[in-house]
Amino acid sequence: VLADRGHTILQIYSRTLEKAQKLAEKTGCFSTNNFDWLNKDADIYILTVKDDSIQQIASSLQLPGKLVLHTSGSVPMTMLSTISENTGVLYPLQTFTKDRPVNWREIPLCIEASNLKSYSTLKTFASSISEVVQPVDSDTRKHVHLAAVFVNNFTNFLYGQALSFIPDKLPLTLLKPLAEETIRKAFELGPQQAQTGPAIRGDLKTIAAHEEMLQEHPVALQVYKMLTDMISANKS
Amino acid sequence: VLADRGHTILQIYSRTLEKAQKLAEKTGCFSTNNFDWLNKDADIYILTVKDDSIQQIASSLQLPGKLVLHTSGSVPMTMLSTISENTGVLYPLQTFTKDRPVNWREIPLCIEASNLKSYSTLKTFASSISEVVQPVDSDTRKHVHLAAVFVNNFTNFLYGQALSFIPDKLPLTLLKPLAEETIRKAFELGPQQAQTGPAIRGDLKTIAAHEEMLQEHPVALQVYKMLTDMISANKS
Repeated sequence: VLADRGHTILQIYSRTLEKAQKLAEKTGCFSTNNFDWLNKDADIYILTVKDDSIQQIASSLQLPGKLVLHTSGSVPMTMLSTISENTGVLYPLQTFTKDRPVNWREIPLCIEASNLKSYSTLKTFASSISEVVQPVDSDTRKHVHLAAVFVNNFTNFLYGQALSFIPDKLPLTLLKPLAEETIRKAFELGPQQAQTGPAIRGDLKTIAAHEEMLQEHPVALQVYKMLTDMISANKS
Repeated sequence: VLADRGHTILQIYSRTLEKAQKLAEKTGCFSTNNFDWLNKDADIYILTVKDDSIQQIASSLQLPGKLVLHTSGSVPMTMLSTISENTGVLYPLQTFTKDRPVNWREIPLCIEASNLKSYSTLKTFASSISEVVQPVDSDTRKHVHLAAVFVNNFTNFLYGQALSFIPDKLPLTLLKPLAEETIRKAFELGPQQAQTGPAIRGDLKTIAAHEEMLQEHPVALQVYKMLTDMISANKS
């Protein structure tokens, strides 16, 4: 995506040279597995590595004056401060899966920088990638990352539970229009306004019938009981 | 929507005459609040009432030979058997909100009928409303209705929890592209394949940091702990 937006990728680093080469081939740039051979002419250096590796790299890499970014949701920007005085974060709020294309234009990019000059460069850079660029400080970003666990990981788990007691013969996509309308409603009306169902209605008869149906699905039953209790207790 | 698809609505019944009149005005048909004055010439009679009211109506209404439908997810079709021998169910798998338009063409309609003739009439009727018509028997429909509680009510509650610890200054729509990709992935890859996040990775450090962040949000913390435990236990 960076190459598509008119940026030149000078070099790709990976501890595993083979990986770096594979990626570098795609964009026609140089690759290395040695920090000493790092090209010093880039405007921006981006660390797209696992959270734990950021600290490791920070302790062995120095790029004074260069703009150095990481892309993690939960690692504070200050983790980069030993590398350069010009640091920043570019956190894309999306779930990525190998070989699944995503539409970068609509992925929210949460950005943060250590000073105004870095912020200005980062903002221009981020805006070339996505139409949704949002300044978010390290503490807020941590909370956004946690919210993403609820919206992505936990929601996906609920879908799995829902499908666990649906007969195999039914196409799962039957539930997709409902899932889509749930999102539209939640983000247009707000989840408080959008809440429906037996728990918020206090419909004890339906709740009892549902619990009876889940007797042979203990995990789904436990989820059902807890969330029903919470929604009931949250009623205004 | 029925009028738009070339059907003629002969009459609208409601216990409250005012409500019936209001709806009837929109479609230019007759209205009544008295079963004795019910038009006997309709091809299909549809009960779109609360679950508990279906039984009530069934005990006081007789339309021998007529095709009589209800639209509930959880009431068995046999509940209608005292009204007519030709009965059926037309359950639209979607969440409806007053004044929110929905695209009926893509709403899955789960249908069931008491005999072949009724099924044929119902299928033609349902297909005139939506492109997605699925035969679903009463027992399966109950399970689909329960799955809808997970996919709609519970997911919406999770969104509410996610937003509860996000600073007010952030636009909530920041999380919408993630929610949309979560659905796409879950329905394309299946939720088991699509599961990501600290729980499935066994990333105890991140889990501990998240729980720490939720100390002041006891409901969200309880949800986090339970779902994280379940996802961890479900790991293959």
